[in-house]
Amino acid sequence: MLDELRARVLAANLALPENHLVKLTWGNVSGVDREAGMIAIKASGVSYAAMTTDDVVLVSLDTGEVVHGDRRPSTDTPTHLVLYREFQSVGGIVHTHSTWATAWAQANREIPLLGTTHADLTADPIPLARALTSAEVADGYEEATGRILIEAVDGRPDERPCALVPGHGVFCWGPTPHRAVENAVTVEEVARLALLTTVLDPKARPLDDVVRDKHHERKHGPHSYYGQP
Amino acid sequence: MLDELRARVLAANLALPENHLVKLTWGNVSGVDREAGMIAIKASGVSYAAMTTDDVVLVSLDTGEVVHGDRRPSTDTPTHLVLYREFQSVGGIVHTHSTWATAWAQANREIPLLGTTHADLTADPIPLARALTSAEVADGYEEATGRILIEAVDGRPDERPCALVPGHGVFCWGPTPHRAVENAVTVEEVARLALLTTVLDPKARPLDDVVRDKHHERKHGPHSYYGQP
Amino acid sequence: MLDELRARVLAANLALPENHLVKLTWGNVSGVDREAGMIAIKASGVSYAAMTTDDVVLVSLDTGEVVHGDRRPSTDTPTHLVLYREFQSVGGIVHTHSTWATAWAQANREIPLLGTTHADLTADPIPLARALTSAEVADGYEEATGRILIEAVDGRPDERPCALVPGHGVFCWGPTPHRAVENAVTVEEVARLALLTTVLDPKARPLDDVVRDKHHERKHGPHSYYGQP
Amino acid sequence: MLDELRARVLAANLALPENHLVKLTWGNVSGVDREAGMIAIKASGVSYAAMTTDDVVLVSLDTGEVVHGDRRPSTDTPTHLVLYREFQSVGGIVHTHSTWATAWAQANREIPLLGTTHADLTADPIPLARALTSAEVADGYEEATGRILIEAVDGRPDERPCALVPGHGVFCWGPTPHRAVENAVTVEEVARLALLTTVLDPKARPLDDVVRDKHHERKHGPHSYYGQP
Repeated sequence: MLDELRARVLAANLALPENHLVKLTWGNVSGVDREAGMIAIKASGVSYAAMTTDDVVLVSLDTGEVVHGDRRPSTDTPTHLVLYREFQSVGGIVHTHSTWATAWAQANREIPLLGTTHADLTADPIPLARALTSAEVADGYEEATGRILIEAVDGRPDERPCALVPGHGVFCWGPTPHRAVENAVTVEEVARLALLTTVLDPKARPLDDVVRDKHHERKHGPHSYYGQP
Repeated sequence: MLDELRARVLAANLALPENHLVKLTWGNVSGVDREAGMIAIKASGVSYAAMTTDDVVLVSLDTGEVVHGDRRPSTDTPTHLVLYREFQSVGGIVHTHSTWATAWAQANREIPLLGTTHADLTADPIPLARALTSAEVADGYEEATGRILIEAVDGRPDERPCALVPGHGVFCWGPTPHRAVENAVTVEEVARLALLTTVLDPKARPLDDVVRDKHHERKHGPHSYYGQP
Repeated sequence: MLDELRARVLAANLALPENHLVKLTWGNVSGVDREAGMIAIKASGVSYAAMTTDDVVLVSLDTGEVVHGDRRPSTDTPTHLVLYREFQSVGGIVHTHSTWATAWAQANREIPLLGTTHADLTADPIPLARALTSAEVADGYEEATGRILIEAVDGRPDERPCALVPGHGVFCWGPTPHRAVENAVTVEEVARLALLTTVLDPKARPLDDVVRDKHHERKHGPHSYYGQP
Repeated sequence: MLDELRARVLAANLALPENHLVKLTWGNVSGVDREAGMIAIKASGVSYAAMTTDDVVLVSLDTGEVVHGDRRPSTDTPTHLVLYREFQSVGGIVHTHSTWATAWAQANREIPLLGTTHADLTADPIPLARALTSAEVADGYEEATGRILIEAVDGRPDERPCALVPGHGVFCWGPTPHRAVENAVTVEEVARLALLTTVLDPKARPLDDVVRDKHHERKHGPHSYYGQP
């Protein structure tokens, strides 16, 4: 089971450069096995080009200690752990500095809901977490980053699968590592569409509520008819 | 015949990611066999990477029922059917959220005719369909999308091969699925050129009518001399 | 000799999609053999993916008639011929609608000389040809396009290797088809740099004359020390 | 030893087109062997596609004379030499006209520190060197370029691994040629993020100092915990 988790987390990490979401060693994906009480996460600062399952570290969900692997886990591991403990439905988490999403994060703006591509992902704007206080940065920076993400999505990770950290980048999650990466791909394109729309019209209006809800419901609602049964 | 149609529709769908017009499972291409009274269309929510002819579904042009294939057709199938029934000369239809065209759709602006690349495609701006009413969204959303596209091109699909749906994306058509995809490639580049031109000059003037007509006529007119005889 | 010319012109045409300067069948490269009085040019409307030397047509420099090949030459052939007849030092010509250069052409603006990348290509702005008159468009459109390009570079093709046609695209030339393509690659990047610079500062000042001349001279002057002897 | 240096410098040069930092023959990477008193640098004006170690020239750190190789070294060699003589900790240097960094250089603006991606590279803005005087351009242009870079980073190459030359491009350095290229990749993405942020908010505020210092310290400080021990 844990070998399979590590293989899936490896594949999800490799999907980041394939989808042009990361450069060099930036970004990380994790997955959780709740029965085993363990998460698997990319090692810190390793290159995607030569990455193997040896670069996927097992960490205790409870204590945060490395359980398997010779490498240091991602420096962002405490953020992932905080999110997994709070978001019981989440099976995978992705963090990137993907270009267009990060531009919104650096501009300290949430991503407005301007089209159906966005509505297919979530019925809300992509929220911008609040700034960390100096005390939070000084002591337990990575854990605090997890807490402001939980605040930003109002504790509703299924309805809000992505959030921006101001001046930093984006976190996404989903039921599996693979689905979390799909959300990261989507939010990056949504961010790009929104920025280009803003260039054409700085006061672009949000998508009509009825169209927004229609798109969201046909993909995610109880009577969804998108995809295969 | 229908096997060949499905193969062509498969190839046209695979051309979407090759031309960077779609991400993940977004977008769809269909083709029609008017003698058989059948359209072939991509299944809903399937990945391009592993797509085979099994993911191309045959649907009755008349009733909209699935005639062949185990999969659900694209959720946009009713839009395609409405267009095929109205546009007798059309043999293939493409829908994408391609980035630059969608930016114009999200900004609720038609794409102005600013250059000869655009004039080679059509002698008119790329029209923006009107917004759907709440009633249209609530009941028969996809069919209504077809109807506003017909309105947007004023019933002239040969002269106006593409149109934007506000807040959503773009539809293109042509005599074959392959030609419809070529129009989708072209409108995306036309949208990109127009947006970058607008950055340089927000009040950029339309192309001179005489140059516009010259380009359009040398490619599409009765005395066309572009391409091979 | 003519076989070699056709092979070189084929290779130069294939370099256009490799360098992301064209989509579909757009763009064309030609080369000249002045002794034979012949130019070789891409056939009209053929796809780059399957292009062979059969798609490179030989045309008389003097009469404009097809001398070898079953295909129609590019519709822009008369423009190329006018330029070859006037520019005796030129051995190859490229026409594209490459994205960033075309944005300047559609905005009806010359490309200002904002940096050393530009100065390495030419010591002048990339000129914008004047608009064609209605009479010129109506009768001999493609020849007239050649004439406004000659005007735009003031008859100095070696100092001014590229020029924009308003609302249309860019033409470049050089001593060989290969060098003409290098100029087309360079002008596209110069156009992109200038547009992004303009986004940061709409009133960006031209490069200092002394730096401009230094860069241009070290690459093209009589005491050039760039490249291999 | 020198063979290995040349092989490393070759690999670092080849990484430039792989990372989309150069076009045609532009850009260059060098490395130094301080014991041997020698630098290895790309030959001037050679193509990346066919580059071999024969295109990597050995030059005396002391005299600037070519010690090994048939080719002329990069025209920017004197700039590299000036930097190596001053920056004792530096083992590799890269020069490019990478698109987004060069846009800032052409706009004559330093790159403001707007996010953690930037802070992971350096705790300061990416400085813009002062303009060269006419006298400096006329006599010893390339050496003078080295001197203004030293001024721009205030003699602290470890804290400031990159600097812009106005109207020109960017230089980066690091302990090895490979690390210098990583810095060039990073500064290009930082420049892109900053430009897109500026489009969204022309008055975007710099990153909070406490977050900036936290990121910089966790990667580069004495108690760094990023990467593998």
